[in-house]
This record gives sequence, structure tokens and C-alpha cells, in this order.
Amino acid sequence: MLNFSVGPVMSSGEVLKVGGEQTPYFRNEEFSQIMLENEELMKEFVYADENSRAIFITGSGTAAMEATVMNVFNNSDKVLIVNGGGFGQRFVELCQIHDVSYDEIKLDFGCNITKEILDSYSNKGFTGFLVNICETSSGVYYDIDLISKFCRDNNLFLVVDAISSFLCNPLNMSAHNVDVVITGSQKALACPPGISIIVLSQDALKRIDDNHVKSMYFNLKELLKDGERGQTPFTPAVGILLQINARLKEIKFHGGVEAEINRVSNLAKDFREKIKNLPMEINTESLSNSVTAVFCNNASTIVDKLKFDYGIWVNPNGGYLSNKMFRVGHIGNLSIQDNDKLIKALYDLHNEGVF
Amino acid sequence: MLNFSVGPVMSSGEVLKVGGEQTPYFRNEEFSQIMLENEELMKEFVYADENSRAIFITGSGTAAMEATVMNVFNNSDKVLIVNGGGFGQRFVELCQIHDVSYDEIKLDFGCNITKEILDSYSNKGFTGFLVNICETSSGVYYDIDLISKFCRDNNLFLVVDAISSFLCNPLNMSAHNVDVVITGSQKALACPPGISIIVLSQDALKRIDDNHVKSMYFNLKELLKDGERGQTPFTPAVGILLQINARLKEIKFHGGVEAEINRVSNLAKDFREKIKNLPMEINTESLSNSVTAVFCNNASTIVDKLKFDYGIWVNPNGGYLSNKMFRVGHIGNLSIQDNDKLIKALYDLHNEGVF
Repeated sequence: MLNFSVGPVMSSGEVLKVGGEQTPYFRNEEFSQIMLENEELMKEFVYADENSRAIFITGSGTAAMEATVMNVFNNSDKVLIVNGGGFGQRFVELCQIHDVSYDEIKLDFGCNITKEILDSYSNKGFTGFLVNICETSSGVYYDIDLISKFCRDNNLFLVVDAISSFLCNPLNMSAHNVDVVITGSQKALACPPGISIIVLSQDALKRIDDNHVKSMYFNLKELLKDGERGQTPFTPAVGILLQINARLKEIKFHGGVEAEINRVSNLAKDFREKIKNLPMEINTESLSNSVTAVFCNNASTIVDKLKFDYGIWVNPNGGYLSNKMFRVGHIGNLSIQDNDKLIKALYDLHNEGVF
Repeated sequence: MLNFSVGPVMSSGEVLKVGGEQTPYFRNEEFSQIMLENEELMKEFVYADENSRAIFITGSGTAAMEATVMNVFNNSDKVLIVNGGGFGQRFVELCQIHDVSYDEIKLDFGCNITKEILDSYSNKGFTGFLVNICETSSGVYYDIDLISKFCRDNNLFLVVDAISSFLCNPLNMSAHNVDVVITGSQKALACPPGISIIVLSQDALKRIDDNHVKSMYFNLKELLKDGERGQTPFTPAVGILLQINARLKEIKFHGGVEAEINRVSNLAKDFREKIKNLPMEINTESLSNSVTAVFCNNASTIVDKLKFDYGIWVNPNGGYLSNKMFRVGHIGNLSIQDNDKLIKALYDLHNEGVF
């Protein structure tokens, strides 16, 4: 199956090879070195400064989102949440559960944030800002420059969920003054799901150190302490961490994060260019490189026919958009030739009158 | 490397094959069917009754321990914890963190629980009982019959952490009146680490339903609700769940849980028989089938020589036992022929005067 999903996505041959190997014992120097290398490469790929840290949680992306809310905020904070879809809503619910005061900026589906919207929240006593920088459901990539400037001007602690944009769109923790970046193994890292990753600035480390968290599994102090020597408090998903190591080194070998972002960006541009003559629309503001939301007739039929007749997997939608839109991911082990197979299939379906 | 560890252990060829495959999309009927099959087989293998449920958490075993403490107990409970090692201590700390009143039964290293000890806690107002039924650090398998009777007589809600004993020693949830069984992917299930599993009796389900948990990721109500249709609230470790499916079906095909327990038990007996003429001692009361703690001279040298000279991995110990004891696991894809290789290596080392 050729997979244009937004996750889990197709892994490289090297990552699959590691997945097929026996899991080694991990309480030793060999594994510690791999974990320390994972931390260094993660920091490098989000341009974190040298006093930052990266930690690896065995869990879904939501585990990292919840651990972040619990560890870097408390009931003396008042945070602003960009809520433009399901994952923005998740931050809202996490703040509710953990008694963090919040206000939400609700955005319409597919719409970007603007300076005017942000300005209306200036000087209102907020202490933190949370955003899913790519809203995966619509493919919007929120304007990080605007958000960064707003947070700097208002002295806000900035948390960026980059689960579906890491390695797709540039994110510079140092230049954008980002305090926390969250991502996961199964998006552009193109490994199986099961590990989520949090990169923490020095300010974030201080907040964690000062906070008291009612959790053992999500106590980031302990993860950070054991992480200093490349270990974890509890048995982690060793196999996936080894796959992440193979993948991070693969990216580094092929020119690093900029080369990988270019590759994904070129795949996205190529696809968007090649569907221009089809009766399909891309009406998202500020497109992320990771995914294209394609609006057309009979979207759910297209998804099914691609799957059953062509062995091509694209992301369907639930709810009111199910027959109006599908999503094409540009992440994972895909090539221009793979795009061409998808485009040819779409032309076939168009010629058959499916849409 | 021939791995006699207590985890992560060696996987079968079929499980490794699945590990080397691309991760499929999982929000569909195919994956739901696999998850429902996983639930049924897990219930069957712990003899849970038909109203029980099994859920799969993407996380370490500690994630399942913490989720259990948070979801089935609250501050109106008073629980009794068997603390005979590191994992009993972990239950103690989890109860402290989550404000569950507790008392602990401290046991010396390698010692089993007795009727006399238990009787001294009768009629003391306890509501729950937590035990790591196999204390992995020493290999003791606590007397489940005694514990079960004590809990029945005192009307205690019984939580059994069977992380390192599931598939090694018989555990019958129905006959032993066990309310919660916790296990993980990386012990005798012989899959990579990353998934922990909780099997819940009808009483446990009622407790969860009545409880209010301050957590999104560890809200078992949501996991149970989505699990009804074979799904999960958040992206799970799809690959490991597919490996678990392959493994559970493999066990079923080869005669089910009793055949697997027999196989592990025979490996343990064979090893223990074959070291009898060596200057090694097994002084654990009530041996688990999963692991043998072997006491001898120069234990840490033996561990190193086995690793570097023979490519055989056994578990070293930290702390004061590091040079006095090592542990040999009998779980994972091991055979009598593998035992013979280990025994031959031990005889070699003995003849060389290493111990």
C-alpha cells in the first residue's frame, strides 16, 4: 500500500530493518549513547540552544501534551490557546483537567491567525501561549513569526505542538523564542507510533524544577535526571527509540533538517502543482508542507477507490466534511514518482466521472 | 546475542517479521478487529470472565500501574501493599502521590508471604490489596492462593501486577477473585516494550466508572469506551499491538496459555536441574518460572564473560548483590538447546576457575 497518510507514515528501509531486529538490553552504555545522540540531534533539528534538553516519553503525542501542561504550568498561570481544530481543543481540555486558567482563540476551519486577533489579547495578564502550529485537520500552518513576536512582546511562555510539522516547516526554537516543542515518532520522523518527544528551553527546565506534579509517569524532573546519562526511569519503547536513532542519523547524513524540509516542501509543491487542472480546490490559508486538504466532489468515494483499485492510501475525513474533502500527506518515505502514481490515479478517476 | 534476560526478551520469527513491516493506518475496521481479538485472547489467557475487559496502554508497565492506582482507588480507600522489592516500593509511591491511604507488608529479599503475616492484617479496615505477584528482582512468586483467600475473607479489591509472571505461572482471575491484572508487552509476551495491558473485572469496571480521575491520558473510562469498538482515544503503538496479536495467536495455535506455561516451566526446571553440580545456589522461596536468581562467587565477572566470550546475555544486579547473584530469565524465544549452551559456558567458566 502506497501511503500518503498524515500518520502513521511509511518508514525508510533502514528504519524497517531496525524494527525487524531483536530488542537489545538497554540498561547499558551502548543504549545510553544512542539516547544521548537522539537528544543532540533532536535539539539540533529544532535549533534549540545548548542549555536546552530533549526527552523521550513512551506514549502517544497526547501523553507529551499532557505532561507539558502538567509540568510547565500551574494554577498561578493564565494561558492563551489557539483552538482551530481537534488538537487545540485537546489543549483546552488538558488545561481544564489540570486547573490551568485559560482563554481560547477560536479560529474557523482552515483559517490562519492574524495580527489583529492577537493584538486583542495583548496586556491581558496572560503568562503562557499554546499552539498546535500545524492544525493537522485542515493543513493550516499558523504564522510562527506573528505568534513569536506577540509572545515576546507580552512575555509569554510559548509551547508549540509541532507533532505534524517537525521536519516539514522550519521551526527555530532559539530565533522564535519557543520554550517547549512537542513532536512524535509517527509523523515526519517516519517511525512507528509509540514515542513522543519534548524539547525544553532553559526557562522550561526552570519551570519544571519549580513545579510540583502529582504523577510518577509524567514527572519530567525524573525523566530529565535519568536522561542526563541517556537513561529513562521506566522501560521505554526501546525498539522505536532505536528506529528514531536510525532515522535522525539518516536525515543528518542527507544534509540535516534543512535538506529534509526542502524535500518535503518539494513533494508538497509538486502535488499541489499537478492537481491544478483537476476540479479540486485547496482553500487553506498558509499551507503547511506536511499535508494538503483537497476539496472536491465525492471525496469519500475517491478515498475508497484509491484504496481498493490503486492500493493508494490517503486520509479520509469524518463528520460533515467526509464527502467534501480528503487529505494527502507529504511526509514519510515518499518520492516525486509516488506523487505521479497518485496523480495518474486521480486523473483516471476524473476521466471515469467519479468527480 | 542469546538473551536470557527478564526483559526485553527474544521475540519469535513471526513477531520480528511484523516488526519489520510498514505501520498501517489504524482508524479502520481491520485494526479494530485485531484489537478486539487481542482483548479476547488476553482475557482468555488470564481466565477472566466474560464481563471483564482488557485495555492496552501505550506506555511502560509503570504507566499501567499508575493508571490502575488512579482509576480503581481514591482517598476513601485504605490499601495493603506487599513490598518485597523495587516494584512493591513503586506501588507505595504511587499511593503516596495519589493520596490513597496504605500500609505495607515489608518482606525480606527472596522471602514468600505467609499466612501468619497476612492474618496480622485481618479486619483492619483495608479495602484493597496490591501485589507484584512475581518479584522480578528475586524471582519469588508470592502465594496467590493465600493472598486470594485473605482478600476474599476480608472483602478486599485485589490488584495483581503480573508483568513478569503472565504466561509463566498460572493466574486465574475468576478462581482467584482477582480484580485487576497488569502486564506488559516485553516480558513473556516476548514483544518489544511500549505497550502495557490491564485486565479488569466487573467490579473494577464499576470502580472506574464511579471514580473521577484528573488525567486525560490515564482516563480508563475513555480507553474502555473506545475499546468497545477496538479503537483507542490516542494514536497507540500500532506496530507493537500488531506484534502482540501475532504472538497471542501463536500461543493459541500451540495449545494456549497452559501449554505456554508448561513450556516456560520446563525451561526453568531444566536449567535449575542442570546447574545442580555447579557451586551455585538458588535460595529463593517459592520460585517463579520466569526467572532464576543464581547465587555464586564472582557473579559480575560471570555476567561479563558470558556476554563478551560467549555472546550470552544474563541479567546482572546493581548494588550489594552485584558480585553475589545474577538472574537467568526463562521467557522469550528460548529452547532446551539454548539452556545447554548457557550450561556449557558456565561449566567452562567453572573449569577455568572463574567461580
